[in-house]
Amino acid sequence: MEQISSLKNPRVAAWRSLQDRKGRREQDAFLVEGARMVREALASDFEVRALLVREGFDPSFPLPAGVPAWSLPDHVFASVSDTRTPQGIAAVLSRRVRPLSGSRFVALDTVQDPGNVGTIIRTADAAGLDGVILSPDCADLFSPKVLRSTMGSVFRMTFAFPPDLPSFLRSFRGRGFSVLSSQLDGDPFYDRREVAPRWILVIGNEGNGVSGPVMAEATHRLCLPMRGGAESLNAAIAAGIMMYDLCR
Amino acid sequence: MEQISSLKNPRVAAWRSLQDRKGRREQDAFLVEGARMVREALASDFEVRALLVREGFDPSFPLPAGVPAWSLPDHVFASVSDTRTPQGIAAVLSRRVRPLSGSRFVALDTVQDPGNVGTIIRTADAAGLDGVILSPDCADLFSPKVLRSTMGSVFRMTFAFPPDLPSFLRSFRGRGFSVLSSQLDGDPFYDRREVAPRWILVIGNEGNGVSGPVMAEATHRLCLPMRGGAESLNAAIAAGIMMYDLCR
Repeated sequence: MEQISSLKNPRVAAWRSLQDRKGRREQDAFLVEGARMVREALASDFEVRALLVREGFDPSFPLPAGVPAWSLPDHVFASVSDTRTPQGIAAVLSRRVRPLSGSRFVALDTVQDPGNVGTIIRTADAAGLDGVILSPDCADLFSPKVLRSTMGSVFRMTFAFPPDLPSFLRSFRGRGFSVLSSQLDGDPFYDRREVAPRWILVIGNEGNGVSGPVMAEATHRLCLPMRGGAESLNAAIAAGIMMYDLCR
Repeated sequence: MEQISSLKNPRVAAWRSLQDRKGRREQDAFLVEGARMVREALASDFEVRALLVREGFDPSFPLPAGVPAWSLPDHVFASVSDTRTPQGIAAVLSRRVRPLSGSRFVALDTVQDPGNVGTIIRTADAAGLDGVILSPDCADLFSPKVLRSTMGSVFRMTFAFPPDLPSFLRSFRGRGFSVLSSQLDGDPFYDRREVAPRWILVIGNEGNGVSGPVMAEATHRLCLPMRGGAESLNAAIAAGIMMYDLCR
């Protein structure tokens, strides 16, 4: 394991810039942190470019021989980490994900809170969905907070990033998919008309909901019952309830 | 409306200390922020002790005549606010909630993340539950972050704070309630045995789940299906899925 001890080392500067969308785009890479995420990355088909280990940290699993590993003193490791109390291990990965495939998807229409995006991916994985579709203005999948919230599901799900979500949905609808828009003025979710075996559930922006052009492509417009005096649900909660029910 | 312009004014110091559990306990009060929360507080049966308004802020609704209101310059208002960009209105309320009543409850067993506690209360309200039971080590219901996450549902739900959750659940079980423990090694949720018309769903700690003594009081131990490779769900997501399904 090679050692790097200076904050000014160009590799360190490059790793640090992976905290920003610009740096990730320029290097076509992203960084995951913590023993669990690194172990899942190594077990996945993602390309691991480098492993970063804090001096004295015991990863509790063998580091693979084929991947360059770097040992960093505390302050250098902390400078590339996004967390306040870094665990002591991170991996640099090529910014590739598994391309969308399957028959049950969730589409995010400008979902901007990183915690919501990550949590929806984690829940989609658990519910049994096959993939996640992200519109251009969603929180960046490769940001530290989104990755953390996925709890490793980013390595197991398939993804698409269409430049134009409405036309993307239209093409799937043409192939027999139901497109379900989750919206506050929708029809009662539990009394919905039959959904095709292949479907896409669309979750809208936290403040503004599903956008007009996306809504126009929907085969179903649905709303969960709101009892009490609550006006709405958190986007990730609504997504979780609907995804689990659709996969029952 | 009286004006206070000094940060050293003893009222200001008292309001500021409502950000901490200790201050809230000593004054038996809490503070809510933002036009929406203040409006809901005024419409509720909570006792509003004071209204705080930033100089120049237009609340867009009439302030009630019977409640003392104070006008504060920017920096003084900011000092009592918990948010980075305060809206400009807040209310000080007596720390009373509506006592538990009804037939469908969610119990939180050491749920410690304020966002989770608030979101579960908001979702319980929307799903149609009647009340929320909090064990002693949960995030404080009256903390700014929990209150914010409830989106006003704190004013509509009923609550209990039993010093000993297991014996509390036992007494409800004795009165014919089903007690449903959500746990990763539970039986399949969707194939559950019949649940009584009156029930309590128990959600456990984010890391450790439902505690042993609480589990021992359960009539049902249930787990949502985990497909894909996901190992667990976020506590608020699991709670949301189960509460909505139980209320269908």
